[in-house]
Amino acid sequence: MEPTRRSFDLAHLAHVELLTPKLEDSVNFFINVMGMTESGRRGDSVYLRGWDDYEHHTLKLTASNVTGMGHFAFRTSSAEALQRRVKVIEDAGFGTGWTDGDLGHGPAYAFTTTDGHPMELYYETEWYKAPAELKPSLKNQAMRFPARGVNVRRLDHLNLLAADVSALRQFFEDILGMRVTEKIVLDNGQEAGVWVTATNKSYDVAFTADHYGARGRFHHVTYALDSREEVLRAADIFLENGVHIETGPHKHAIQQTFFLYVYEPSGIRVEVANAGARLILAPDWQPIVWTEAERKKGQAWGLKTIESFHTHGSPPIEEYTGPKTK
Amino acid sequence: MEPTRRSFDLAHLAHVELLTPKLEDSVNFFINVMGMTESGRRGDSVYLRGWDDYEHHTLKLTASNVTGMGHFAFRTSSAEALQRRVKVIEDAGFGTGWTDGDLGHGPAYAFTTTDGHPMELYYETEWYKAPAELKPSLKNQAMRFPARGVNVRRLDHLNLLAADVSALRQFFEDILGMRVTEKIVLDNGQEAGVWVTATNKSYDVAFTADHYGARGRFHHVTYALDSREEVLRAADIFLENGVHIETGPHKHAIQQTFFLYVYEPSGIRVEVANAGARLILAPDWQPIVWTEAERKKGQAWGLKTIESFHTHGSPPIEEYTGPKTK
Amino acid sequence: MEPTRRSFDLAHLAHVELLTPKLEDSVNFFINVMGMTESGRRGDSVYLRGWDDYEHHTLKLTASNVTGMGHFAFRTSSAEALQRRVKVIEDAGFGTGWTDGDLGHGPAYAFTTTDGHPMELYYETEWYKAPAELKPSLKNQAMRFPARGVNVRRLDHLNLLAADVSALRQFFEDILGMRVTEKIVLDNGQEAGVWVTATNKSYDVAFTADHYGARGRFHHVTYALDSREEVLRAADIFLENGVHIETGPHKHAIQQTFFLYVYEPSGIRVEVANAGARLILAPDWQPIVWTEAERKKGQAWGLKTIESFHTHGSPPIEEYTGPKTK
Amino acid sequence: MEPTRRSFDLAHLAHVELLTPKLEDSVNFFINVMGMTESGRRGDSVYLRGWDDYEHHTLKLTASNVTGMGHFAFRTSSAEALQRRVKVIEDAGFGTGWTDGDLGHGPAYAFTTTDGHPMELYYETEWYKAPAELKPSLKNQAMRFPARGVNVRRLDHLNLLAADVSALRQFFEDILGMRVTEKIVLDNGQEAGVWVTATNKSYDVAFTADHYGARGRFHHVTYALDSREEVLRAADIFLENGVHIETGPHKHAIQQTFFLYVYEPSGIRVEVANAGARLILAPDWQPIVWTEAERKKGQAWGLKTIESFHTHGSPPIEEYTGPKTK
Repeated sequence: MEPTRRSFDLAHLAHVELLTPKLEDSVNFFINVMGMTESGRRGDSVYLRGWDDYEHHTLKLTASNVTGMGHFAFRTSSAEALQRRVKVIEDAGFGTGWTDGDLGHGPAYAFTTTDGHPMELYYETEWYKAPAELKPSLKNQAMRFPARGVNVRRLDHLNLLAADVSALRQFFEDILGMRVTEKIVLDNGQEAGVWVTATNKSYDVAFTADHYGARGRFHHVTYALDSREEVLRAADIFLENGVHIETGPHKHAIQQTFFLYVYEPSGIRVEVANAGARLILAPDWQPIVWTEAERKKGQAWGLKTIESFHTHGSPPIEEYTGPKTK
Repeated sequence: MEPTRRSFDLAHLAHVELLTPKLEDSVNFFINVMGMTESGRRGDSVYLRGWDDYEHHTLKLTASNVTGMGHFAFRTSSAEALQRRVKVIEDAGFGTGWTDGDLGHGPAYAFTTTDGHPMELYYETEWYKAPAELKPSLKNQAMRFPARGVNVRRLDHLNLLAADVSALRQFFEDILGMRVTEKIVLDNGQEAGVWVTATNKSYDVAFTADHYGARGRFHHVTYALDSREEVLRAADIFLENGVHIETGPHKHAIQQTFFLYVYEPSGIRVEVANAGARLILAPDWQPIVWTEAERKKGQAWGLKTIESFHTHGSPPIEEYTGPKTK
Repeated sequence: MEPTRRSFDLAHLAHVELLTPKLEDSVNFFINVMGMTESGRRGDSVYLRGWDDYEHHTLKLTASNVTGMGHFAFRTSSAEALQRRVKVIEDAGFGTGWTDGDLGHGPAYAFTTTDGHPMELYYETEWYKAPAELKPSLKNQAMRFPARGVNVRRLDHLNLLAADVSALRQFFEDILGMRVTEKIVLDNGQEAGVWVTATNKSYDVAFTADHYGARGRFHHVTYALDSREEVLRAADIFLENGVHIETGPHKHAIQQTFFLYVYEPSGIRVEVANAGARLILAPDWQPIVWTEAERKKGQAWGLKTIESFHTHGSPPIEEYTGPKTK
Repeated sequence: MEPTRRSFDLAHLAHVELLTPKLEDSVNFFINVMGMTESGRRGDSVYLRGWDDYEHHTLKLTASNVTGMGHFAFRTSSAEALQRRVKVIEDAGFGTGWTDGDLGHGPAYAFTTTDGHPMELYYETEWYKAPAELKPSLKNQAMRFPARGVNVRRLDHLNLLAADVSALRQFFEDILGMRVTEKIVLDNGQEAGVWVTATNKSYDVAFTADHYGARGRFHHVTYALDSREEVLRAADIFLENGVHIETGPHKHAIQQTFFLYVYEPSGIRVEVANAGARLILAPDWQPIVWTEAERKKGQAWGLKTIESFHTHGSPPIEEYTGPKTK
């Protein structure tokens, strides 16, 4: 088989900016329930990280009237890789232009996906340096284990909604050089969901068909925990904190992720998850294709997918002002 | 910081051949205690795999008078990557030459490390196709979960002993294009242990100074389990099966791996381990350097390293016939 | 508060006899999927045990035309306790009479609950002695850990359906001297579910209102696993073996048990579960009372209770030939 | 076999009072590292509890010049059981007399063991009522899960040192009506360690021979966690907090407890542990006897017992002022 990873230019998913109408409630949730640490504030934004995220931040919360995703960014493998990739994006006409960067990272190239999701690429970054009280005992981790709330370790992946899944899949493959590891193809041949990766993780970004045909909406962001037991304990902690648990813990059939979905205070879906020792090591991994019939079986152990999982996004459809294709 | 991963030519550690004077006992151990599956036999060799190893085999056991490591192999990222890398090896004078391949994979280029460890690179491989009775319920895993013994998931890494650690480190960096994630540097400046990776795993190969200064010996092979709980349960199972537990379960300070070391029937050290959600995603990861003083603290939670861990290798020093540098 | 445990005469739930129309399939399920061990056969019955059950058996499977529960038994705290308790039962008119015992235990006193469930009490028992190949490495466990299938540890509890929950609750309290730890009371004051214990476990028997008002039906038997992680792994193993997973893994709000329900081949519901370190140590524990409103919240983390959980019993209602009260 | 549990008068281990020269440091450790909650202060004492301890407190820390154990208490099964047991103690000449009780419990009868350990029995107690901000989401647990530090669930057991192990064993059996579940008997016939229980837990109190022959010293107190994974995570948290880890995590051969021992700030040994689903349900459980040869094998998976485990007690032997028998 042919290798399916066409480029090593993208190093990893770096951060996501979420827009929240309840900034301080959201910050409180991510710090005291999720166990994250604040690494800075600027303007209407608060920057946060998990205890083993190596960069300045992996989450940027920005005050807004409506929930949504401000942008998300990948770090590239090198300065040259950044230039190479920007050229591809520009040539294809998706580019917006360079920004001076943000707290914690250098110049970033902004662009939008085929579905209108704002993205950035950058290479120059600020490695997190823990202050004395947060220094870890073992120097090969970014920060001291917080032992507070859910204790999320690191940003894992994010999930988008898309009006046109196939176009977005081609964008991630051809423009960003990521590879498809799994996908859902309906009986009519339409792609309904795609999982893509730039690393040995089995996915860094996933996207599924928007139930309303809206463009560019956001589904969820996921932070990784070290074990399934920690995901279960997270459920206990969410329960104690009055956090809305949408579904889980359970195991996805697709990607076999052990998942738990909740809503943060402004209504944005957040996942904590564990993948065990599963990695995609094969250079010629061929996409696993799931049929409609297979999807009807529900999740791995039979849980039926909850309705809101197909409809609830950021912004909520009631507040969405763009074009709808359905 | 500069990116430290200079090449993406190597895709992943593919398999290791172990030499055993007790072939059938060793096979029985890997199948009934470790929970692996036999995928073929040829001549004096038996081929085995974990339930989520995607290739024909990740372990080849070959009958021998003395324990040792026959060879280990990396799969490359593409056919072109194989050619590129072979040229570097040949030009540097480490090459032995092409072989026709083996059960389960195509033509392989053989060479030796600076320390004399036999290695191979290849690209063409045979994806494992589970027979009906071993078909998994979820089509994104290689084989049905066996529910037998320790149930190792996949090959994770291997560990070598080396007469000259620095030379071997340079070999893995310059000739194979792997990057160093952690290392031990003695007070006199000598490198005593190095961990290198070709993937987002924090290491695929490790090597430490041979206590006797012998060249090319083997330390252990490691299979991955999905959780620390499974490593603990593995300890129960090894105990019940009369398997010699050398040390663990405990957590390494270096790499933070949750480890458990046992000897298979012929005396070769085997590890089962879990790394949680730890990955090296940063393209410019700088090697973590551990000092002598730090090493004296023992493992992460204070366990002192057992003496045999520094001395026992394959072949045992009593049977080693090569040059000693100490 | 007053102590709620009125008697120490019952030592623990000892075994349950299940009636199966598919005896060999059922035996195969309990041995190869659940990981139990056969300890004897007699007539149409096969006797089984978990790896840390100390008696001859905790499960007796008997061939039958229809699924059902043949009887279940408690072991008493002493020979005197047996006599004391038999007198209470006889005096109250529930007694059937003495039997000579069965494989693995001595004389048993048979009786029926208010709802018609056949029960027995006995004291004399045969401690399991593992044959050489099943001897454990640690002499404080009954048998070697099997490392096969789900590896259930020991019988934990069983769950009955009842036409009259309150009458059955009084029976367990007044006649058997067990205490109520939790219960469901409907808005109309009716008891809909009760959990009773004779030990420090938070329940040994539970019973809920039969949806059809049938008398004496059986809901499920539960075996204990050592961790929630093992319950999750059990789900993987059930999936691989084509076992019908009814619901779970998830955490009950009531009793906080981490549960997983499946059907064995003849259709009898079987649970594997873990309770963590939860015990009822308080001698004056007062029953936790759950309201209809609280029950509507679903399980601990929000899972809605599946419909079949309220209706499916043994025998199935289609095969039930007794009186119905609804 | 005969039933070995001669009395049901004792309900469970209720609390322990530890004497600490560093009261505030100790309080900080138990609250912020162990995750306990303060439930009161009086004089030089601070009262604490785990999140599922149902009484006012299970730990009382009292300022003192030297570390030690102030007293420990069992709650009885009823008011009558208390009177019965006090009579036995008084008749045997071990009694000290009644106290008015303490914060959280009613009148207590004080006495000393054969080895001089101060003990109390009481029945009347104050059930913990969580304030609004600590109310649990599930009403069948005592308090909200704290999600802070190690999150110990409940008091599990304590361990004493004794100059005369056999005398103390007889005291627990004959005077307190507890039963022996396991013990160590040396080749010379001397008992070197005994584990006794009043419940279905496999032990509530353990005691081993004092290395120095000192009388009445204290070895450690243990709090229960819900899983082995939580014990491992506790090790990470102790490490991050600079807490001295003496030994573990590992599994004891005796009782199979998964243990982790640390020293709180004043030097008193504290354990966090998990027993899985192991319980002693058999009414006629016969003590497991471990020989010297068996003990030399070390812990379950081969860990050698650390020297300080045999010598370090409270008070430290340097500060001990009583008689030594060796």
